[in-house]
Amino acid sequence: MEKWLTSLKTRTPEEGYELAIKLATKSIELIQPSETIRKKLRPKYSRNPDSLIAASEVIAIHFQTVAAANNYWRSDKKGYY
Amino acid sequence: MEKWLTSLKTRTPEEGYELAIKLATKSIELIQPSETIRKKLRPKYSRNPDSLIAASEVIAIHFQTVAAANNYWRSDKKGYY
Amino acid sequence: MEKWLTSLKTRTPEEGYELAIKLATKSIELIQPSETIRKKLRPKYSRNPDSLIAASEVIAIHFQTVAAANNYWRSDKKGYY
Amino acid sequence: MEKWLTSLKTRTPEEGYELAIKLATKSIELIQPSETIRKKLRPKYSRNPDSLIAASEVIAIHFQTVAAANNYWRSDKKGYY
Amino acid sequence: MEKWLTSLKTRTPEEGYELAIKLATKSIELIQPSETIRKKLRPKYSRNPDSLIAASEVIAIHFQTVAAANNYWRSDKKGYY
Amino acid sequence: MEKWLTSLKTRTPEEGYELAIKLATKSIELIQPSETIRKKLRPKYSRNPDSLIAASEVIAIHFQTVAAANNYWRSDKKGYY
Repeated sequence: MEKWLTSLKTRTPEEGYELAIKLATKSIELIQPSETIRKKLRPKYSRNPDSLIAASEVIAIHFQTVAAANNYWRSDKKGYY
Repeated sequence: MEKWLTSLKTRTPEEGYELAIKLATKSIELIQPSETIRKKLRPKYSRNPDSLIAASEVIAIHFQTVAAANNYWRSDKKGYY
Repeated sequence: MEKWLTSLKTRTPEEGYELAIKLATKSIELIQPSETIRKKLRPKYSRNPDSLIAASEVIAIHFQTVAAANNYWRSDKKGYY
Repeated sequence: MEKWLTSLKTRTPEEGYELAIKLATKSIELIQPSETIRKKLRPKYSRNPDSLIAASEVIAIHFQTVAAANNYWRSDKKGYY
Repeated sequence: MEKWLTSLKTRTPEEGYELAIKLATKSIELIQPSETIRKKLRPKYSRNPDSLIAASEVIAIHFQTVAAANNYWRSDKKGYY
Repeated sequence: MEKWLTSLKTRTPEEGYELAIKLATKSIELIQPSETIRKKLRPKYSRNPDSLIAASEVIAIHFQTVAAANNYWRSDKKGYY
């Protein structure tokens, strides 16, 4: 498998959020490697509000990790308080 | 896509809470980009107590992140203890 | 909307717990602004053990945030160890 | 309401665990104040494995908070490493 | 009840993981003290993938606590970076 | 049982992610030791979007732990800000 995660560092919070989505998506791919099956599941869960909310919780947990890794993108070492 | 998240810093806890809601909402939009479908789902989940509770959990997780990023809006560097 | 959250600081852990409940409740209100609908949902979920447990999980997550914000209500700066 | 939570400090991890259970239980009581109803729900959820697991998750989250508040009951200020 | 939790300290990550399982199991025992009932539930939930995943989430949360308590089993005070 | 977890340290975030998957998988194995039963469950949950999302949440929680243990794989002691 090619490298897909070399660093948790991102330039901006928004890129950090995108990385959180990537981290969430990757585990689905690793548990269900068949792209064919995943494509069949997508329309199902993306129209189910509870599945959408559950997926967004996984993203939220990864975003916590990425935000901490980036020291919350504070502009200086002491933070911005 | 236009920039929607430039900083985790907010002036007050209440604005931090609003940012947490934005962070939670955004993942729903990114997973289900069709506004038409999302609008159909809304009346469904917003009348289902379990969906409401699940959505509020995602907000709670993001609020943890935003609160930490803002050092809990303490008024001085040492905290307010 | 009037201000409802000006600080995460509370005098005691018990007040912190009450703030956690407020933080959990607020997201339900923001997602489902109709008080009429919320009142209809309440008897339903407050008699369903799984809904009660799920709601208490959201409170637990917010309590983590509030407790951290108050440095766990330790009585001195070094903690009480 | 009488005071039920004056400190997050406990002498031992085991007492901290008991406090976590108290914190989890309290939210159920606050959302569903009727003891009659709660007593009816108990046999139901205490025989349902999924409810038991969900309840133990809430306890786990509160235990995180209590453990952090007690600096993990380390015996000295530097920790026990 | 005899003492079952005297410290969060473990010698290795693997022992920490075992402690996390113990912490997760204990709440089930405390909520449902009847061993007879618990034994009846076990075959049910241990063959249900969703129950297994939910149980493993509780273990994951406790493992976070235990790992933090042990400073992640780093070999020196500064960490191993 | 042979040792399966000697350290939380990994060289890269990607290896940390793999360790998180291992940590998540291990609890399933410990709760349900029968490989025969686990193999029967796999096709079921790996085609159910909600099970996949729940499994990825467990991985996300373990990844938080592993990432913190590795100080987020920052290249120097002060972090990379």
